Amino acid sequence: MAEKEKTKKRLEELGKMILNEIKAGNNPLLDIPIRALSNVIFNPKTRLIEMGGAESKRYFFNVAHIRKFVQTIEAAAIARELMTVDKHLSLRQVFYAMRRTIPGTKIDIVDEQTESNQAIEDMELLSKSSREQLHINANRNGAAAGKIVIKDKGDIIDWSKLGSGGWAIPSNTEEIEFKKADAKFIIYMEKAAMWERLHEDRVWDKLDCVIIASQGQATRGIRRLLQRMNTELKLPVYILTDFDPWGWYIYSVLKFGSIALAYESERLAIPNAKFLGLTADDVKKYGLERQKIRFTEKDVSRLKQMAEYDWFKENKDWQKQFKMMQEYGGKVELDALVTKGISFVSEKYLPEKIKNKDWID
Amino acid sequence: MAEKEKTKKRLEELGKMILNEIKAGNNPLLDIPIRALSNVIFNPKTRLIEMGGAESKRYFFNVAHIRKFVQTIEAAAIARELMTVDKHLSLRQVFYAMRRTIPGTKIDIVDEQTESNQAIEDMELLSKSSREQLHINANRNGAAAGKIVIKDKGDIIDWSKLGSGGWAIPSNTEEIEFKKADAKFIIYMEKAAMWERLHEDRVWDKLDCVIIASQGQATRGIRRLLQRMNTELKLPVYILTDFDPWGWYIYSVLKFGSIALAYESERLAIPNAKFLGLTADDVKKYGLERQKIRFTEKDVSRLKQMAEYDWFKENKDWQKQFKMMQEYGGKVELDALVTKGISFVSEKYLPEKIKNKDWID
Repeated sequence: MAEKEKTKKRLEELGKMILNEIKAGNNPLLDIPIRALSNVIFNPKTRLIEMGGAESKRYFFNVAHIRKFVQTIEAAAIARELMTVDKHLSLRQVFYAMRRTIPGTKIDIVDEQTESNQAIEDMELLSKSSREQLHINANRNGAAAGKIVIKDKGDIIDWSKLGSGGWAIPSNTEEIEFKKADAKFIIYMEKAAMWERLHEDRVWDKLDCVIIASQGQATRGIRRLLQRMNTELKLPVYILTDFDPWGWYIYSVLKFGSIALAYESERLAIPNAKFLGLTADDVKKYGLERQKIRFTEKDVSRLKQMAEYDWFKENKDWQKQFKMMQEYGGKVELDALVTKGISFVSEKYLPEKIKNKDWID
Repeated sequence: MAEKEKTKKRLEELGKMILNEIKAGNNPLLDIPIRALSNVIFNPKTRLIEMGGAESKRYFFNVAHIRKFVQTIEAAAIARELMTVDKHLSLRQVFYAMRRTIPGTKIDIVDEQTESNQAIEDMELLSKSSREQLHINANRNGAAAGKIVIKDKGDIIDWSKLGSGGWAIPSNTEEIEFKKADAKFIIYMEKAAMWERLHEDRVWDKLDCVIIASQGQATRGIRRLLQRMNTELKLPVYILTDFDPWGWYIYSVLKFGSIALAYESERLAIPNAKFLGLTADDVKKYGLERQKIRFTEKDVSRLKQMAEYDWFKENKDWQKQFKMMQEYGGKVELDALVTKGISFVSEKYLPEKIKNKDWID
């Protein structure tokens, strides 16, 4: 049975179970894994941020539980409908789809989007499926170019023949098929302007790769796409960010997962991703010391926090970087490489770093 | 001579003029149009927000002027280099390219990006060219799909064959060629999630059109692309936003231009664009009254401001909408149409509005 049919079946079984319990005069119960920091762990074996085993019990016949119980079931019903008619909605649109009045009452199933969002997260955990598999989409942003040919919605799309724009990455990348891959690796970057720089220099053609950018934190669609290319096509993923605690956090989320989405790490995180962005050593090597952007208080405390994370604590290479950044007292942007030449990043920085395997793991 | 060669020539003539003046012992002078609210007018004939004629004189041999003078010339030199090597940089990257120390001094040409941004704006006015024509790119965001075939960087790209993602719109859309257009109109929307809804429903196939989305305010690349399709392909542009003063402002900028970019209205604004988004009448007609999002104080004052703008003041249709919105006391999102059915917006709202020419001008 295809993954999609399995997901749908799990939702239907959930509904049947509840109906049967009610018919039998029992009190239906949902075991919902607890999504809180207390139930999140870093698993040193998988090198992923994962959920622990704590669950909370939610009963149907319980005035304190009933509202959330009904919301979760309503979200499941909408997901099942979306899968049946093969359509997708955004989180906001699902909120409206759920916002109806229960017949014979003046009670709406949801009043705020936080309620429908939580119901969707509960349902993801209950059905062991991601919201994308349930046909509910997150935000979209970002573009791709390079030596890959995909099939999507019946169209064959060659990422090397899309002009200056590239392929717009959709919010949901579950059903894309990879038809041909002449790329040897993927470069992910946090800034669209850097992507345009590399694209204009045809870096993907010269280095046989794929370039992908979002804006800031990668969208779920991009994270899933990178993870699928990494596991299905065996392509290494290199992450290109500024010399900046926030850029380094983007790397951290892509590689290890995040606390907020710990229950999705297995589908979204890329434990073998490498950091190819600016390091303290690069700042010296390429003479960028004068391009310093002084730390704000927020930057300083972010850097301290990062050094304390379980997934960085035992890592000597990162601890060295954190220390050197603290001593330097500032950040440096990748864009500062322009001071060395318009195409310096494409012609020198990237080829040199990749050839020398000059990345951090 | 091609537009590009003309632009380059204007920059070179500017440089020669300054050199000649200095050699002749004169004090070189730049006449810079003033970019301030006091020098912006709404031209009722063109229906565009335009610059007035006020200029300020900037002298080379003047301690109060010299810094800005040099910055403007440095920006011109970089633009000329970019055009010569046929490469592009972002605003941020140009800031780094300009941030160099003047030999024999401790003075940097620019310290902050606001300085390089202003120098670029001055240069746009002096050279009568947009920053895109000068190979300096703004932000990018957004996607397109539909019945258009373009040529870009040597690639032929069919916007109807790009899967669920669509074509990622680059920051610079100056050099795109339109090869084939079976579309009858363009729908621009402010939200990527709505674009995904219409795209999944293949609205562009059913209604013979193009769909384009950004996120919030349209990027310059998208505005220029819409304007070019409107003038070169004679395609009407319909703008789809929420029932919301901020959504209506997005329409206003696309149609009339903006105060901040008044000097670019001729290249970016679309005076014949129509508003196809939610109106007060639609809220009643489609029974969306209960989907109200209450006004914040900011919303109320924005709405008042809008009603006072020259370009809305004399427009009875808009004044009626402003009044009805004020009485209703809230906003309604397009996504609320989901309460009427997953594809209601594609199957009923849009076809009906377009068939009945139920738009606001």
